[in-house]
Amino acid sequence: MRDFNDDADISTFLNHIDERAAYLATARPTAVNLFWALDRMKKFARDNAGGINTNTLKKLLLDEANRIREEDLQMCRAIGEYGYELIKDKTCILTHCNAGGLATSEFGTALAPIYVGQEKGANFKVFADETRPLLQGARITALELSEAGIPVTVICDNMSASVMATGQIKACIVGADRIAANGDTANKIGTYGVALIAAAHNIPFYVAAPSSTFDLSIPDGTHIPIEERGREEVAFWSGTKKTVPDKAMVFNPSFDVTPSKLITAIITEKGAIFPPYKENIASLLG
Amino acid sequence: MRDFNDDADISTFLNHIDERAAYLATARPTAVNLFWALDRMKKFARDNAGGINTNTLKKLLLDEANRIREEDLQMCRAIGEYGYELIKDKTCILTHCNAGGLATSEFGTALAPIYVGQEKGANFKVFADETRPLLQGARITALELSEAGIPVTVICDNMSASVMATGQIKACIVGADRIAANGDTANKIGTYGVALIAAAHNIPFYVAAPSSTFDLSIPDGTHIPIEERGREEVAFWSGTKKTVPDKAMVFNPSFDVTPSKLITAIITEKGAIFPPYKENIASLLG
Repeated sequence: MRDFNDDADISTFLNHIDERAAYLATARPTAVNLFWALDRMKKFARDNAGGINTNTLKKLLLDEANRIREEDLQMCRAIGEYGYELIKDKTCILTHCNAGGLATSEFGTALAPIYVGQEKGANFKVFADETRPLLQGARITALELSEAGIPVTVICDNMSASVMATGQIKACIVGADRIAANGDTANKIGTYGVALIAAAHNIPFYVAAPSSTFDLSIPDGTHIPIEERGREEVAFWSGTKKTVPDKAMVFNPSFDVTPSKLITAIITEKGAIFPPYKENIASLLG
Repeated sequence: MRDFNDDADISTFLNHIDERAAYLATARPTAVNLFWALDRMKKFARDNAGGINTNTLKKLLLDEANRIREEDLQMCRAIGEYGYELIKDKTCILTHCNAGGLATSEFGTALAPIYVGQEKGANFKVFADETRPLLQGARITALELSEAGIPVTVICDNMSASVMATGQIKACIVGADRIAANGDTANKIGTYGVALIAAAHNIPFYVAAPSSTFDLSIPDGTHIPIEERGREEVAFWSGTKKTVPDKAMVFNPSFDVTPSKLITAIITEKGAIFPPYKENIASLLG
């Protein structure tokens, strides 16, 4: 909004907010928290626009954005506390992609129980799937955890089954981009495979996400749009060195949907939700 | 052997062969065909060394090596014929890593049923897992198939569950590096995960391998040594751009073991083997 004239008419400013919010909403179709935050900011602007000028509303909007951030910090910590209760006897955790402090605020979601455990003196070890094609697990999760002094081992995504077969992994925790009313969970591509492999080894599989990730307007995961991204993410190493021949096609979905039957519990800032999900999600969050 | 003096004493040459074979056997601990070929060449040398000089034995050894190659061509074609009978109504196949003509001879093993099908007018589509860390699926399988005019789509390893969930994949076929007496199969890392995910979707999972891949001296997969390779394969893109922070560890096993209970059939040049594997492997190959 910095480029918007402080002296502009307030109704012009409100329209500008709607336009910008609509543009930002097109950034990613799968994750729902983005829409939630944009809707909150739009509603806040409408509700507070009476009798003030544009400059004052901008300051109020900044305050509201900082409140969202502060609430996110509290939410992540609460997720960490509830999650830690579930994993405190699990010495070794596998995670996929990144749902730590760089994706959310401070503690993150999937990593929050591990950080809370560290504060309480627990000694978790973590395996981080590298998470192709963009390697958020190798580049972000492993960075965050290792800088925090938590032992972390990076593996390629296709190694998780082999590691789980050894019996080392005691639990899996992942984040979420959107959770349907029945608990079906969209998250970074590869999550569904991890859940299937964990189930085959009787390893608990947890989803950690704030309540803003739930989309109770959709009954199940079939209604979640899955973003597909470009060929170049898969077909080039580091954006430059070609790894897929030109005559071959590439399919690059960025998310997948894990059916709720594969999820041991969904950890929110309001508590952990167990099956049956439809009933228990509605009663905690509905 | 080119560097070995043609006029050398034959017993010195035989010792030289043993030394070189022992060295070559250290190249890869998991795949068993290499040991099989080295043993065959060593035995051939001993059996034919009587009454001839070193120069003549070298020529005989080259003829034997060419016979192995010719037999491999015939084996791959036979695997293709037997395999095609199993997949001829499967329109779309998923494969992992590379078991094509660059890894074996001409038709390969896992890809042979697809090439045989093409000769017979079948129209297979193939999904190729890119196969981290070295991308043999993206770089070799996709190259071979696309150059042969077979439609091939490369996906990251972590996308196979998502693609299988759509119902597109009608069968999986992979190669093998060593198969135990009970059918447990070592193959490129990630194969076990593909087998688990295929089983969860009721998709048949086939292993294609020549009889030289079987190691009947070991009862099951727990006796197969798994090669671990260096950090740098996982931690750098294309060997140069760092993707894993220095403080994080890396685990890089090159193979995993798929339990035989997940395998629909093992396709050999002598025919397809179905469960119960211990009995049926022994009766076909014992």
